[in-house]
Amino acid sequence: MDKFSLFDEKWTPKIVGELNDQYVKLCKLKDNFIWHSHEHEDELFMVFKGTLYIDFRDNKSIEINEGEMLIVPKGVEHRPRTNGELVLNLLFEPKTTKHTGQVDSDLTVKKLDWI
Amino acid sequence: MDKFSLFDEKWTPKIVGELNDQYVKLCKLKDNFIWHSHEHEDELFMVFKGTLYIDFRDNKSIEINEGEMLIVPKGVEHRPRTNGELVLNLLFEPKTTKHTGQVDSDLTVKKLDWI
Repeated sequence: MDKFSLFDEKWTPKIVGELNDQYVKLCKLKDNFIWHSHEHEDELFMVFKGTLYIDFRDNKSIEINEGEMLIVPKGVEHRPRTNGELVLNLLFEPKTTKHTGQVDSDLTVKKLDWI
Repeated sequence: MDKFSLFDEKWTPKIVGELNDQYVKLCKLKDNFIWHSHEHEDELFMVFKGTLYIDFRDNKSIEINEGEMLIVPKGVEHRPRTNGELVLNLLFEPKTTKHTGQVDSDLTVKKLDWI
């Protein structure tokens, strides 16, 4: 996970691996992301540092601590969020996954870089 | 990764998650596994504790330390191995992946359990 030191942007996943039409991505997270869902793709979050919260539309929020993971099923609207701290997170998801799913926002990254 | 405490068997992957027709598995490794390959599946190894060695047929061996990962492409024969120590490893691979690929051995586990 040394590759986390290669970039500083928040909410901008970097691709570090590819297998079976899936990408492994690293992402630095801080504060709130936007609400979105991925119509066809399940998404795995795995936290390497800090605490990540995933909010759901039923007012439930799931806390993911270091060494824990969560899979958000396709079609489920969610909002990743941190409590002001920097969180180091890994994503596993299909190559077809769009950054902000069905939503287009200022935060949307359309072309992800490999590191 | 607390789920590593739920089992003791070596070289017996336990399923902890499913997404996009892939499984996330945890496995405890010690000493040598057998040479094998997976004809149709790339396989990701991610080490949470210890040092894992993956041997290849060209006499090369790749060392994977804690917090590092390696993807073995489909069709590439490989042998996971540890230097006598217990290694905690995560696997990410398609649900179709057979434990020992094209090889059937005493170590082959045909039905994996969820934990």
